[in-house]
Amino acid sequence: MDYQKILKDIHQEIQPYATIGKQADYIPALAKINPDQFGMCIRTIQDETFMHGEATTGFSIQSISKVFSLAMCLSLEGDNLWKRVGKEPSGTAFNSLVQLEVEKGIPRNPFINAGAIVMTDILLKHLKHPEEEYLRFIRSISGNDLIGYNEQVALSERENGYLNAAIANLLKYHRNISNDIERVLHFYFLQCSIEMSCYDLSKAFLPFANHKQAFAFENITLTSSQVKRINAIMQTCGFYDEAGEFSYLVGLPGKSGVGGGIAAVYPLRYSVAVWSPRLNRKGNSVMGIKALELLTTQTQESIF
Amino acid sequence: MDYQKILKDIHQEIQPYATIGKQADYIPALAKINPDQFGMCIRTIQDETFMHGEATTGFSIQSISKVFSLAMCLSLEGDNLWKRVGKEPSGTAFNSLVQLEVEKGIPRNPFINAGAIVMTDILLKHLKHPEEEYLRFIRSISGNDLIGYNEQVALSERENGYLNAAIANLLKYHRNISNDIERVLHFYFLQCSIEMSCYDLSKAFLPFANHKQAFAFENITLTSSQVKRINAIMQTCGFYDEAGEFSYLVGLPGKSGVGGGIAAVYPLRYSVAVWSPRLNRKGNSVMGIKALELLTTQTQESIF
Amino acid sequence: MDYQKILKDIHQEIQPYATIGKQADYIPALAKINPDQFGMCIRTIQDETFMHGEATTGFSIQSISKVFSLAMCLSLEGDNLWKRVGKEPSGTAFNSLVQLEVEKGIPRNPFINAGAIVMTDILLKHLKHPEEEYLRFIRSISGNDLIGYNEQVALSERENGYLNAAIANLLKYHRNISNDIERVLHFYFLQCSIEMSCYDLSKAFLPFANHKQAFAFENITLTSSQVKRINAIMQTCGFYDEAGEFSYLVGLPGKSGVGGGIAAVYPLRYSVAVWSPRLNRKGNSVMGIKALELLTTQTQESIF
Amino acid sequence: MDYQKILKDIHQEIQPYATIGKQADYIPALAKINPDQFGMCIRTIQDETFMHGEATTGFSIQSISKVFSLAMCLSLEGDNLWKRVGKEPSGTAFNSLVQLEVEKGIPRNPFINAGAIVMTDILLKHLKHPEEEYLRFIRSISGNDLIGYNEQVALSERENGYLNAAIANLLKYHRNISNDIERVLHFYFLQCSIEMSCYDLSKAFLPFANHKQAFAFENITLTSSQVKRINAIMQTCGFYDEAGEFSYLVGLPGKSGVGGGIAAVYPLRYSVAVWSPRLNRKGNSVMGIKALELLTTQTQESIF
Repeated sequence: MDYQKILKDIHQEIQPYATIGKQADYIPALAKINPDQFGMCIRTIQDETFMHGEATTGFSIQSISKVFSLAMCLSLEGDNLWKRVGKEPSGTAFNSLVQLEVEKGIPRNPFINAGAIVMTDILLKHLKHPEEEYLRFIRSISGNDLIGYNEQVALSERENGYLNAAIANLLKYHRNISNDIERVLHFYFLQCSIEMSCYDLSKAFLPFANHKQAFAFENITLTSSQVKRINAIMQTCGFYDEAGEFSYLVGLPGKSGVGGGIAAVYPLRYSVAVWSPRLNRKGNSVMGIKALELLTTQTQESIF
Repeated sequence: MDYQKILKDIHQEIQPYATIGKQADYIPALAKINPDQFGMCIRTIQDETFMHGEATTGFSIQSISKVFSLAMCLSLEGDNLWKRVGKEPSGTAFNSLVQLEVEKGIPRNPFINAGAIVMTDILLKHLKHPEEEYLRFIRSISGNDLIGYNEQVALSERENGYLNAAIANLLKYHRNISNDIERVLHFYFLQCSIEMSCYDLSKAFLPFANHKQAFAFENITLTSSQVKRINAIMQTCGFYDEAGEFSYLVGLPGKSGVGGGIAAVYPLRYSVAVWSPRLNRKGNSVMGIKALELLTTQTQESIF
Repeated sequence: MDYQKILKDIHQEIQPYATIGKQADYIPALAKINPDQFGMCIRTIQDETFMHGEATTGFSIQSISKVFSLAMCLSLEGDNLWKRVGKEPSGTAFNSLVQLEVEKGIPRNPFINAGAIVMTDILLKHLKHPEEEYLRFIRSISGNDLIGYNEQVALSERENGYLNAAIANLLKYHRNISNDIERVLHFYFLQCSIEMSCYDLSKAFLPFANHKQAFAFENITLTSSQVKRINAIMQTCGFYDEAGEFSYLVGLPGKSGVGGGIAAVYPLRYSVAVWSPRLNRKGNSVMGIKALELLTTQTQESIF
Repeated sequence: MDYQKILKDIHQEIQPYATIGKQADYIPALAKINPDQFGMCIRTIQDETFMHGEATTGFSIQSISKVFSLAMCLSLEGDNLWKRVGKEPSGTAFNSLVQLEVEKGIPRNPFINAGAIVMTDILLKHLKHPEEEYLRFIRSISGNDLIGYNEQVALSERENGYLNAAIANLLKYHRNISNDIERVLHFYFLQCSIEMSCYDLSKAFLPFANHKQAFAFENITLTSSQVKRINAIMQTCGFYDEAGEFSYLVGLPGKSGVGGGIAAVYPLRYSVAVWSPRLNRKGNSVMGIKALELLTTQTQESIF
């Protein structure tokens, strides 16, 4: 499979979508990004790398970080995690608070904000130096020691993060958060602020594709079965209210972020990361989704 | 009408309900109250007073304060108030956050917590020394300068007030709060913490019954029509999800609080306050509602 | 009080609203009505009648019939009625099915469609010849033997009544309907199709205002207390999601219908009916509500 | 892979679950089934068959038929189908009517009842003899001409099918059904009543696994890409509110029915059907899910 050529073809083919949508603008740091960027990187389990466009430019990974948090929580907490968070898709985009209230403070899954905030509370329980250890895990899994938090972004998110603060307070009311709310939110927003490139993300997601290899980074270890189950959750819950559409069009487990990034895996073959800041109404990268759809269509490779 | 005898008869007749329900216990200050207390006070527009039981014992008025806040907001803001809060009953008890989310941050009415938090934000806009001026108004309308906040209760409420903090954050997210959230919550919880007796409340509610008299206390003034409209909102929204039941059984406009107090008015006749800490599942005083039902049944006086 | 002059003044004053809104058009029989009609009739408990405009023109009373159904059910079934239907306002306009599902088939109150369909099922249980007996009661209470069903309207409603059929099926699923669904719907739509004039309605509602008189029409009898409680339900639930607004602006218990009619009572004083086909977005008569608001403002008479 | 031995081992290992749950009992025909049955059948794309237990006993396939309906609709209507039904998981189990109302009559996906009822309406538009042609397709894809409807079951379902009738009426109200409601429901319940064995189902699902082969049965044809997309929808929506759990534990696209059957595919390897009548609270076969979990765990074969 000539992935290099495929990437180039894809980039050409998605040009008609180049000006559709706009980037996230709820905080200045995201609003000021040049929206007309595109990068993509495939990494096979044979450690081949294929890149195209701005594949080494760092961007805010935002919700993609929730996959790393889940990996850490599953390693540290095991199946007890599922007492505090569900594994079912959330149904509608807008209703995190509605469902939280109806379902008494148990978030539907780890990839909606409420679920990630609960995971943050769990990490705070296990880790002595949470911020440092979280970063160390990500640096280890991506093999890049330069990866860091963007504290400016994190601060800005907190200042405008009334919806997430509402969620955290509701979780606390239902006794599904034990740490101080501000402590939890501070760490949560730092996770979202991490900056990585498509190249970094493809490396960091390869262990999820390559689950026959041991998963062990810093003191975070997962069994093959646990890795496959993280993939299963990405498949059903990775794209908010567009999980079904993504599954239908692309057919790979993956996770998106409002920074315009998407990381996905083709189990036992490759990981792939794509980035383009313009988002559709559901908050997913327009060119990113289109590029991945073309990838699985042209290669005729998908999990289905 | 021999109200004194009626009060005595009522007290006797409600004895079978004396141990039903239990007082609010979500904060220590309320949990430690002796639940086996009952007081009642009627005050006619001829300024006659009829009391029975612990009618001069102070208690936490809690949500009854929302009537005072509405009077102040309507005086200070006029009908612009209704751009930020509705006048419709909320339908179900548990769903303040659900409705807030669906209805984009406009609370259903001023008597649910979300509505009162928005009113608090409005008061902060108009008042130079909000806490002092609020207290001055209440002291003036009740003619009792000893009335004060219970700061211990307010502090305790804030420490456990995760649901209200969630509501405030959601309101801020929808741009229906302009002040700092902590500032708003601090003042809101102080309002709830005010301690008054049945005697005080009956005096403070008399101007709502006696709407042909000028309503002017400190610099808070209302027209007869505005007072009647506050009564209308008490009628439809004064008892959370039990407004219909109260209207059906009692037939007077009124407002309850989780401290076990209820204040109501029979327009152009009297105001009445009753207090007993044991609550039913909807959060209203068991003996209080029963006593008011007997009052309107025995006197055959109700607005219908 | 010179009601005759007041009616005339009101009609003049509401002219600016004469072309606002449009009539119900979901069935041909309602769509073809001339929307530019207005009638109003006051009847005092001294049996004086004051009329203005098209006060003797018959129109489809639609949901106003629910008050008559409630009177019959309360007489026939007593307080057992409240095991199958609630007394609380429904909160939002659009959500009858949502609430029915969440609340397991118990309608919020007798004046939403779901509640009236349950009442129809109850009437079918008690009455041998339901259609005849229902009509006989209405003819008796209004003193007009010419009042009848418009079978054309009823048929047309049934043919387009998918939402009501959905509600009836959901009620049946929750075992809150015992008769055959088509039988229930047939009778329900006939009730809605009754044609009366403002004059008829003011006579028919007078017994609700005049509750110190015995309520006995055909074999339907109610105590004074029961009549007052029907008024209480009109107050809190009579205008769908505009009950609070109506209570605030008008301050009388009443019930509206999508035919453009509104009937209301000022207890122990008068009943009043008004009709004008153009509706606001909530389904209530634009000129009707305005006229009643002016009536209670100019007379300074309201229950508050 | 010695599938024969694996099936035998699985059956032994799931014995502790043999008496957990109970079969569907909302209609007599299902209630009277002996719940203590278990059958399982694997069919590889090399046309090898492995069976265990009551694998050739026919049972009511119920919602598994929705996969066949989707295949037909996608062939007959193409992507226009998605204008009338979505592809997203529904989120919660209980809320089909809630979501239908909020989302204006567009069912979330083809595998909830509302979606299948819309598909039935579409089939009625395309097919001259819908009941015959539907059966002919199923007989063709499973290679068994003895497969038929159980009209007793269909009749019984219709007689108790108030919830589905409510859904159909709500869809009609929102103009998402064009045929007569009774006509649609009659055909819908016949589809659910089809009886097949695990052996039949594994044959019928093989073309979904074997998507590199042409999909052409009677006049129903699908491209490889269309078949893969049906698999994607099974993955995200095949198990009501347990889709995430099934994806997590089993990791194969599949569809369950309240008759206790489950059919699933491992793309390009095999199809598998399992049947055991006892259901969990979410309406899925207890032993069926457990058996499939063991299958993918022991073979270490899943799509992730």
